[in-house]
Amino acid sequence: MLSPADPAVPATFPAEFAAASWGQFRRAAPLVHCLTNEVVQSVTANLLLAAGASPAMVVEPQEAAQFSALADALLINLGTLNHARAESMLAAIESANRAGTPWTLDPVAVGALTYRTDFAQRLLALHPAAIRANASEILALCGHPALGRGVDSGDDSLKALPAARALAQQTGAVVAVTGRVDYVTDGQAAWAIPGSDPLLTRVVGTGCALSALVAGFCALEGRRLDQVAAACALMARAGERAAAQAAGPGSLLPQLLDEVYQLAEGAA
Amino acid sequence: MLSPADPAVPATFPAEFAAASWGQFRRAAPLVHCLTNEVVQSVTANLLLAAGASPAMVVEPQEAAQFSALADALLINLGTLNHARAESMLAAIESANRAGTPWTLDPVAVGALTYRTDFAQRLLALHPAAIRANASEILALCGHPALGRGVDSGDDSLKALPAARALAQQTGAVVAVTGRVDYVTDGQAAWAIPGSDPLLTRVVGTGCALSALVAGFCALEGRRLDQVAAACALMARAGERAAAQAAGPGSLLPQLLDEVYQLAEGAA
Amino acid sequence: MLSPADPAVPATFPAEFAAASWGQFRRAAPLVHCLTNEVVQSVTANLLLAAGASPAMVVEPQEAAQFSALADALLINLGTLNHARAESMLAAIESANRAGTPWTLDPVAVGALTYRTDFAQRLLALHPAAIRANASEILALCGHPALGRGVDSGDDSLKALPAARALAQQTGAVVAVTGRVDYVTDGQAAWAIPGSDPLLTRVVGTGCALSALVAGFCALEGRRLDQVAAACALMARAGERAAAQAAGPGSLLPQLLDEVYQLAEGAA
Repeated sequence: MLSPADPAVPATFPAEFAAASWGQFRRAAPLVHCLTNEVVQSVTANLLLAAGASPAMVVEPQEAAQFSALADALLINLGTLNHARAESMLAAIESANRAGTPWTLDPVAVGALTYRTDFAQRLLALHPAAIRANASEILALCGHPALGRGVDSGDDSLKALPAARALAQQTGAVVAVTGRVDYVTDGQAAWAIPGSDPLLTRVVGTGCALSALVAGFCALEGRRLDQVAAACALMARAGERAAAQAAGPGSLLPQLLDEVYQLAEGAA
Repeated sequence: MLSPADPAVPATFPAEFAAASWGQFRRAAPLVHCLTNEVVQSVTANLLLAAGASPAMVVEPQEAAQFSALADALLINLGTLNHARAESMLAAIESANRAGTPWTLDPVAVGALTYRTDFAQRLLALHPAAIRANASEILALCGHPALGRGVDSGDDSLKALPAARALAQQTGAVVAVTGRVDYVTDGQAAWAIPGSDPLLTRVVGTGCALSALVAGFCALEGRRLDQVAAACALMARAGERAAAQAAGPGSLLPQLLDEVYQLAEGAA
Repeated sequence: MLSPADPAVPATFPAEFAAASWGQFRRAAPLVHCLTNEVVQSVTANLLLAAGASPAMVVEPQEAAQFSALADALLINLGTLNHARAESMLAAIESANRAGTPWTLDPVAVGALTYRTDFAQRLLALHPAAIRANASEILALCGHPALGRGVDSGDDSLKALPAARALAQQTGAVVAVTGRVDYVTDGQAAWAIPGSDPLLTRVVGTGCALSALVAGFCALEGRRLDQVAAACALMARAGERAAAQAAGPGSLLPQLLDEVYQLAEGAA
């Protein structure tokens, strides 16, 4: 049986670490180049703006490469992958790696779908700074069978932590496996971030937008494991506060953005 | 003159049928594959999530075919049709038909625009389970001249009911013609769903998102005519409740999603 | 030193001119064809709907050309430009010019990015009715070095006014350079529109959506300089009122749309 004393269950990421990191993010205002899916572009940009970052979506391959060299961070999200977007992603990653811009992978729905799963495997060799995914996606990246529906529960994210550690060791990335409780690991150390509210799963793009935050926090100075955990903590804390006031998923999203804004401002 | 006693005016869909169907939908939580237009993807996903379904947008042709075989329902919306998306749609429909996945057509703006009108005519032969459109689009699919602007009024949806019946008989689909009053027909029987608020037409994508609900309700057991009517009733009832509280179209959308969530939960 | 008495500082656009123009817009309900970027399509459509216009996004080249001839106005926004969209834009502009449909350019992020900057230069020769941009983009269109970050402040928009005048004279367009204070010029006369709230810059697409309003106002009878100023004034006034009530950028957007709706209705 797992217990807090069990070394397999990571310690909770301290609130004071998180608050310090949020202030650092707000002051740095990183420029985050997002190559993300069609469905979530607006909520992704709005979450970054609320947290104090500058989002930009530049998609033509030549421009994507130019822009990744100028940006502070790059997000690669496979949600509505197609051939044209895959070409832009490869150009942007190559340019980011040349310029030293950290890039983050969100491997949406890898597993059952062949094209994106093959593409994600190819990207793993290109030195991502971070990977943010749910339990099922982390397991699929490691070649394990998918858990199927209901993978976002806290239990499942803990079950995927060993795979997340292995993935971190294999790729050099900090890996965040998110669910009711989020776990973040660099392959050795790990943090737990509790408190994600299930109502957040009724708003499209909250996971994808969190990946954009993770990308932005990778641009900050300091231990990357802590910065990625701070990104997860910002979403979890804001989500918890917003869900406590929301009448449903419609009112949740505006309140979530307001809470992120206030937490990043240090006003909440 | 039409009157409630006239057989040409369908009876109102009973509220108790609607509530039973909403509960069934919430428990089934259908996985709805949406190939929809660029503008409304976010509101479409959020409406499905609020109602208890799982939306997914998978657009690369090979993956779209793989995914339609796994999904419970497929939505085809022609709003921002282009050649690449048309290819994905045909691959998804073929796969859906092979797997027995019901698919729903939203023929956005057919009539004046040649490319989509030709494509829509081609799709009509591919056995849609349902078609959701406004009066002008239904008439255009049947080769009648378009009514032009203002086609969403209740009168106009009733005027398009004969064309909707003919289209249902021709295609085998349940056809919903929506406006101030929605009419749903399987070519023989029909229901009326009153109560749609005009403020809903000031929020982009409410019609397109309703089509996604219709697609999801087609995955349920029971008479398809009743399930499609229940989808329309969920939007109409939630829209009426939301419009009664909203100060304008901005506050309407969050309230609409909250109302859909509460109605589907049986909490309202 | 610049002062209100200095002829280089334009007079403030009168509130009564703005209110008359908003009513005219609401009654005309222009059909605005938007070829805009992937991120902001939903907010763009919602702003137009709130103001009383009818937005439509038609992207396939042949259809885009058909539709621009039917529409009352056309918007061209370069935010997520790619080769396919550029082809649609050129087809739509050619058709709009043939039909006498006014078209408006939003040259998002021109300057550092080569592909879109070259494309924007090419479009300047195609007789835009209006151009809406921030200071940095206006300067880039005129071949001046970009100001970099922080270009949206009032000072910067005033500094870009001479370039905006030159651009208006070169192209024949009315040019709006927006920031804390917006300036609108036809190359000779100019108006100032103060009051834009900085919180608006924390919501994605407010500038892009304003460009869609500008496009729609170009369809109205009357002096184009005044109509473009009225579009800017609608956003500035609604933004100011919304920001006064919002707890952050999340609640700002619904309130902004409600305020635009009420101002255009003459109810606020």
